[in-house]
Amino acid sequence: MKNIVVQKFGGTSVRNLECMKQVLNNVRRPLAAGDKVIVVLSAMAGETNRLLALAKEWSPAPDLAELDSLVSTGEQISVALFAMMAKDEGINCRSVLGFQVPIISNSAYGKARIESIDSEKLVAMLEDYDVLVVAGFQGVDANDRITTLGRGGSDTSAVAVAAALQAEVCEIYTDVPGVFTTDPNMCAEARKLDRISYDEMLEMASMGAKVLQIRSVEFAKKYNVTVHVRSTFSDEPGTIVTQEEAVMESVKVAGVAYDKDQAQVTVVGVLDEPGVCAAIFTPIAEKRILVDMIVQNPSREGRTDITFTVPRSDLPDTLKLMEGLKAEIGYLALLSDRDVAKVSVIGVGMRNHSGVAAQAFRALRDENINILMISTSEIKLTCLIEDKYTELAVRTLHQTFVGQYQVG
Amino acid sequence: MKNIVVQKFGGTSVRNLECMKQVLNNVRRPLAAGDKVIVVLSAMAGETNRLLALAKEWSPAPDLAELDSLVSTGEQISVALFAMMAKDEGINCRSVLGFQVPIISNSAYGKARIESIDSEKLVAMLEDYDVLVVAGFQGVDANDRITTLGRGGSDTSAVAVAAALQAEVCEIYTDVPGVFTTDPNMCAEARKLDRISYDEMLEMASMGAKVLQIRSVEFAKKYNVTVHVRSTFSDEPGTIVTQEEAVMESVKVAGVAYDKDQAQVTVVGVLDEPGVCAAIFTPIAEKRILVDMIVQNPSREGRTDITFTVPRSDLPDTLKLMEGLKAEIGYLALLSDRDVAKVSVIGVGMRNHSGVAAQAFRALRDENINILMISTSEIKLTCLIEDKYTELAVRTLHQTFVGQYQVG
Repeated sequence: MKNIVVQKFGGTSVRNLECMKQVLNNVRRPLAAGDKVIVVLSAMAGETNRLLALAKEWSPAPDLAELDSLVSTGEQISVALFAMMAKDEGINCRSVLGFQVPIISNSAYGKARIESIDSEKLVAMLEDYDVLVVAGFQGVDANDRITTLGRGGSDTSAVAVAAALQAEVCEIYTDVPGVFTTDPNMCAEARKLDRISYDEMLEMASMGAKVLQIRSVEFAKKYNVTVHVRSTFSDEPGTIVTQEEAVMESVKVAGVAYDKDQAQVTVVGVLDEPGVCAAIFTPIAEKRILVDMIVQNPSREGRTDITFTVPRSDLPDTLKLMEGLKAEIGYLALLSDRDVAKVSVIGVGMRNHSGVAAQAFRALRDENINILMISTSEIKLTCLIEDKYTELAVRTLHQTFVGQYQVG
Repeated sequence: MKNIVVQKFGGTSVRNLECMKQVLNNVRRPLAAGDKVIVVLSAMAGETNRLLALAKEWSPAPDLAELDSLVSTGEQISVALFAMMAKDEGINCRSVLGFQVPIISNSAYGKARIESIDSEKLVAMLEDYDVLVVAGFQGVDANDRITTLGRGGSDTSAVAVAAALQAEVCEIYTDVPGVFTTDPNMCAEARKLDRISYDEMLEMASMGAKVLQIRSVEFAKKYNVTVHVRSTFSDEPGTIVTQEEAVMESVKVAGVAYDKDQAQVTVVGVLDEPGVCAAIFTPIAEKRILVDMIVQNPSREGRTDITFTVPRSDLPDTLKLMEGLKAEIGYLALLSDRDVAKVSVIGVGMRNHSGVAAQAFRALRDENINILMISTSEIKLTCLIEDKYTELAVRTLHQTFVGQYQVG
């Protein structure tokens, strides 16, 4: 069997005929090298939202299985159109839908998880065709009902197919050239990384460097699939996401990320006794509000302060919930700040290099940026700061940890 | 098991939310009687054409398998939307796609024929749901590829499902109240038939009384499925299409049909020798032009005239073909007339009642309508006449054969 290359293209890459022809140019590259290609496509840009709007018109809270069947037509349309165009261009190809592989998922409609992929069926198809055009984002459950994998699920489809076929590489095409050390719109010194580890990518992605869907990175890590993030509109290599040992750039810090969609809540003077944290965070979880950072100060005179962050749009709901708890918890005051942001320094090198935190704090202090909260993990340091300092903090941290390696 | 009623609704009946609610009213009728219901839906009006136009933009001659996968999304969207709306309205229902039944067809993409339907699977689903919303027009072939059954194929889907389940009745909902004795727009005396036989319906449908797709009637006849053609927007019963013995109105003529999309071609003075008909009609068939009536005059002095009709839009191509054959066939002249029309008198009663033809010729003569060609079958008499007399001929024949029974 020849080498198999998996390529995934997102909605902007297939938004019209012109763009699809660009996609075909990328497909020709491995074909010319004698490889077989599996192309995973998203719905044309805007189509999924159009279908969701239609559903909303028909039903205030649509049945999730019906909704999945509805929105999966978006990918069905793009793979059929691409395949008919590619065939005209002389490519021996066909489209493949989720149920035709099959890509079996659980029945969590709207956010299903892939359970298995019939790789033998795909291999058999690859004997008849040079290119298979697989609909991303969709699967079928054990009852043959169509499922979807959640927003950005096509990345996961591609990685899962690559894992099932033990493909050489899974190329994720996007409209940027790769993964950057930080947001180039915010920091002119941002540079494209040649390689990054799965864990670093996970931390980068969750912080808003939205090149790859988080779950696809988890999947790639679990099955050790090498992912190549690159541009649809350029031949230049992009960024390889791979296992830590294979990441050559053994630097302390891979990148600097930020998230301005944050708000801070402090519940002042709660009684420091068992169950109080549960009392605060259970109702928030039930409202499906994602709490990110949580800090509890040491107790003084039997009372403590609990501070946490939530997405900015969830602040009003969160405050309402907390006010409703006042009688039960008996706190002294409720504070909030919606003008905060997170900046993070990420790198597997932090495991072996001490002093990253101290160096970061000094860098921020030198710019008079006050740190409101701190949270750390093995490979990440996050500081909550005043919103208005975000750009300055990103540039400063990038200069401190990444910029220096440009000349080294 | 409860009774099963199959209901089919076309594109205009599901064209928007408002219309779908009307459809739901029709579904509630058998539900209230305690029956289980299978609702077969077409794509929303205009959607199939939108998808075909998209395909044409992508590929001048799209791969037919890809085209089927593309256009089948139209029905997928309408069944998902209908099911989510109906569920909101308290109906225990789900959508069912062709591959989920499965409805197995051959691989003649674009005009596939149903080969089998897994009735056990449908019956099992009917134990869990009161209503199944089945996507019309689509099936899957033996390789799991999506097929479509050709224009109007949803009628065939409905009849096939009814046959597989031995359903009580297959109701075909449309925007007219039933099958009429002739076109009501042309003849004020036209009346709705309570019953009509399969054969009569086949002849009526092929003549332009386009209430039911021909193939669905053939299917209904083959499997003896009683079809009830009726209006989406009224509770009134429509027309029952059933076996001949069950048609109570034992009259000579069920209706009068017409077709103005006709043109006449005469190849004058061809040598009357074996192979000449083949020489004329083979190239026409290869161009996929549908020849309808064919008349060959008795030979005189070793030469004969061959006259036939084709759809009016195919006349230029047909004449070009004939001119190309002049050397080979050696005919004397080529005549054509694009201003002709067919009128037909249809009725199983014609089998037992003699004199229908003579009566028809007299009626046309009394109005000074000249007959250009005649063709007859067991249950149909067709005359080709000058186009401008179509309305008069229809009214005259209707008055002669149908009108008289109104008072009888």
